[in-house]
Amino acid sequence: MKRYESLAEDIAQSIRTGVLKLGDRLPSVRQASASRGVSPSTVFEAYYLLEARGLIRARERSGYYVIAGARAMPPEPEIVSRPDGDSTPVDVSTLVFDILESTRSRDVVPFGSAFPSPLLFPFDRLARAMTTAIQKMDPWSTIDDITPGNASLRRQIALRYLIDGLHVHTDEIIITNGAIDALNLCLQAVARPGDAVIIESPSFYGALQALERIGLKAIEVPTHPREGVDLGALALALERHRPKACWLMTNFQNPLGSLMPDEKKRALVELLTLHDVPLIEDDVYGELYFGSKRPVPAKAFDTKGLVMHCSSFSKSLAPGYRVGWAAPGRYAQAVARQKLTTTLSVSAPVQAALAEYLAKGGYDRHLRQLRHALSVQQSAVMQAIVRHFPAGTRATRPSGGYFLWLELPEKVNALEIHRHALSLGISVAPGPMFSAQRGFTNCLRINYGHPLDERAEAALATLGRLVSAYSDPKTGAAAGNQGKSRNI
Amino acid sequence: MKRYESLAEDIAQSIRTGVLKLGDRLPSVRQASASRGVSPSTVFEAYYLLEARGLIRARERSGYYVIAGARAMPPEPEIVSRPDGDSTPVDVSTLVFDILESTRSRDVVPFGSAFPSPLLFPFDRLARAMTTAIQKMDPWSTIDDITPGNASLRRQIALRYLIDGLHVHTDEIIITNGAIDALNLCLQAVARPGDAVIIESPSFYGALQALERIGLKAIEVPTHPREGVDLGALALALERHRPKACWLMTNFQNPLGSLMPDEKKRALVELLTLHDVPLIEDDVYGELYFGSKRPVPAKAFDTKGLVMHCSSFSKSLAPGYRVGWAAPGRYAQAVARQKLTTTLSVSAPVQAALAEYLAKGGYDRHLRQLRHALSVQQSAVMQAIVRHFPAGTRATRPSGGYFLWLELPEKVNALEIHRHALSLGISVAPGPMFSAQRGFTNCLRINYGHPLDERAEAALATLGRLVSAYSDPKTGAAAGNQGKSRNI
Repeated sequence: MKRYESLAEDIAQSIRTGVLKLGDRLPSVRQASASRGVSPSTVFEAYYLLEARGLIRARERSGYYVIAGARAMPPEPEIVSRPDGDSTPVDVSTLVFDILESTRSRDVVPFGSAFPSPLLFPFDRLARAMTTAIQKMDPWSTIDDITPGNASLRRQIALRYLIDGLHVHTDEIIITNGAIDALNLCLQAVARPGDAVIIESPSFYGALQALERIGLKAIEVPTHPREGVDLGALALALERHRPKACWLMTNFQNPLGSLMPDEKKRALVELLTLHDVPLIEDDVYGELYFGSKRPVPAKAFDTKGLVMHCSSFSKSLAPGYRVGWAAPGRYAQAVARQKLTTTLSVSAPVQAALAEYLAKGGYDRHLRQLRHALSVQQSAVMQAIVRHFPAGTRATRPSGGYFLWLELPEKVNALEIHRHALSLGISVAPGPMFSAQRGFTNCLRINYGHPLDERAEAALATLGRLVSAYSDPKTGAAAGNQGKSRNI
Repeated sequence: MKRYESLAEDIAQSIRTGVLKLGDRLPSVRQASASRGVSPSTVFEAYYLLEARGLIRARERSGYYVIAGARAMPPEPEIVSRPDGDSTPVDVSTLVFDILESTRSRDVVPFGSAFPSPLLFPFDRLARAMTTAIQKMDPWSTIDDITPGNASLRRQIALRYLIDGLHVHTDEIIITNGAIDALNLCLQAVARPGDAVIIESPSFYGALQALERIGLKAIEVPTHPREGVDLGALALALERHRPKACWLMTNFQNPLGSLMPDEKKRALVELLTLHDVPLIEDDVYGELYFGSKRPVPAKAFDTKGLVMHCSSFSKSLAPGYRVGWAAPGRYAQAVARQKLTTTLSVSAPVQAALAEYLAKGGYDRHLRQLRHALSVQQSAVMQAIVRHFPAGTRATRPSGGYFLWLELPEKVNALEIHRHALSLGISVAPGPMFSAQRGFTNCLRINYGHPLDERAEAALATLGRLVSAYSDPKTGAAAGNQGKSRNI
């Protein structure tokens, strides 16, 4: 990240957190240059970027003023999760499938989608890397690149860890079919049917489905919408349930968008080390930060090989290529063996193509553009929600990723909103998808990974009307008829 | 398959089964032309092909004579498997991994390998198909090609079923990461931890590992080295154990090479239908037949959607690409959902590349070459075994695939042979890898998917000496010292 981008992100962060408020005047270019110790042109470029993102505006001969920000955003949610602390069998998979399958059509406005717009990724450059890689592919690589995987690709991944200050040896890295494969393999390496596993509340439905598939019990732990899992509650759960693993998303959690501060990550690892419980760390959104640097994973604080770090290129570089990895610490051999017996290995040409792309350079430039696009889209969607949703709507303010979490007025049933919206050609991800106990009945996850074009803006307006109507159950059914319903 | 190839295969089959013996004179070209109702040039081409394969030779003004065949082969094994009929938990995975990992180096002569030589496959043509496919890849295909998978590829697979006389609808086909993924997903779709599953004896170790991983019990059923699983024993096992599934390899079973006759396949499906037990049919070697046409899978006789047919392109076209599929009958939705939660989907560019290759044509031409190469290599290895192994060695005579199963003199311990041979740079796959009860202690699986070059011929000679020596335990240890041992 360039210096002016870093300065711009600092200021954007101050706006997001309300330190700078709507109408505030920014320091002059000269003042900021002196106080930040950067050149005036750096400040100028930062202000220009913020103006382009719709956060500030220049007034002639007067300076720059904040025109968006905390007051243009809905209030943040309460600490929404209060799971009961019991371990429960999971039975949510059918609900999740029914919802996901209903949202796959391109005709549906994809606020419920799990994926950002594929147009945000460098397919042409990837295609060139693939063409180069496949032309020089050695037939024997089909055997050599079997799990743990292509040696160059694993070295490139180890290098990226190093840039972020982590020492992960190439030998520890196992290439997988996306992060979901890595996470499942790590889980299978440490837990057997009937065991209990700690997850967040709300949690990524993929974790719930994995637990259900293997026959594991879920212990849901309260999770703060800004700072992630509650360590006090986690400590209690560790003592009470003796779980076999803890599966958490430390950076830009799906669905909340929460980001665990570094010190909290350190404390988390210390706590788990005390109980000798492995952490399965899902870090697929880590590269999509809007701040000035990549948040480190909890693995950075691990000295015992207890953290199984999982990530992928699916959200940051190459959707659909299905390439991820695990760096599972002391469980590396167990995870590699799980991989060998389930799918053997990742496609050799695809591994070679990504190794080629990463070696060529250009990934960081792409990531800057991607992060910028997502942060602009977040602002746009956030402001549209303010325009269209009723009072009483609350929203998280993630500083990365592409998901917002909405807490709607208490009477609103998110599953009803989902069904009604879908009949109008709009998808959302209703709260009960993210809970073993099917809680969060008045919450929605909103994907802002697609540009807010006219169709999407109109869809948000429709959603806002639906939410208003369902806030009063008597008018709820009538509300839908205002839209262009397919079913009626 | 062209007419002359089909004629050549018929004759080769007669040689393999001993109908035509060493020294026999073949009918003259004119006679054969009349009796077969083909043109003389077709007969001539067939004889030419058989000569190239080292099975017959022309003598000046005298005609063609058989120079290889049944008498140049070791005798066939007894019915080797007599499992006790109990259902047993499986604990063989560590042994399998230790053996497989020890054989991955390219410095080791690969008789223990699971893979044929990668040089037998059309990597250049595949690379061109990939280059074409990736250049026209639509970014949205990364979402559209999610499980069940790329529509063109699934259509191409449905077309191949049609050519073989099976009506499998495109909608039933689910693209997977190779056949092992398909098999695992099918198993997980129908069995839960603690359930019992019927497998062959000996059986593919991948099935054993899958059962062990999920916590299933194995019921091993006797399997005939030529004709596959014993239906009488299967019927008893179905009644006694009420298994949740039956996992069989009907065509060129790994490790035996057995081929279930069509009528037996029909009876198998009828038996399973009677008990309403799904068949997980592993058909990865079906395209590698040496006869005149592809043996149909048992799925051809299924009218109830009870057969979950699994195959891949890994052994027939594109090793390392990791593309396979399941056609799981009435379980299609359950299998697709297993796929979505474990690895989401198969890599989009790789799916597109294979669809492109198959649409272009050339697959059948490649398959003819591949089958020819494997059948030549089988003859060569079989004859080398006769030259180098002691009397009392028996071998199966597969009419497809690339594995032989050797039954060694009873006193020989295959695990000792494996360890000793490995110390001399030669891998083999010892019998206990293929049995939940670690039986087949005097058996080896030999891979003939690599050309029998000088190094391989010398390795077979060394193996033969080891087997001779270990037949007499007193001289066994000494025998190894004749070779170039690394460990001593």
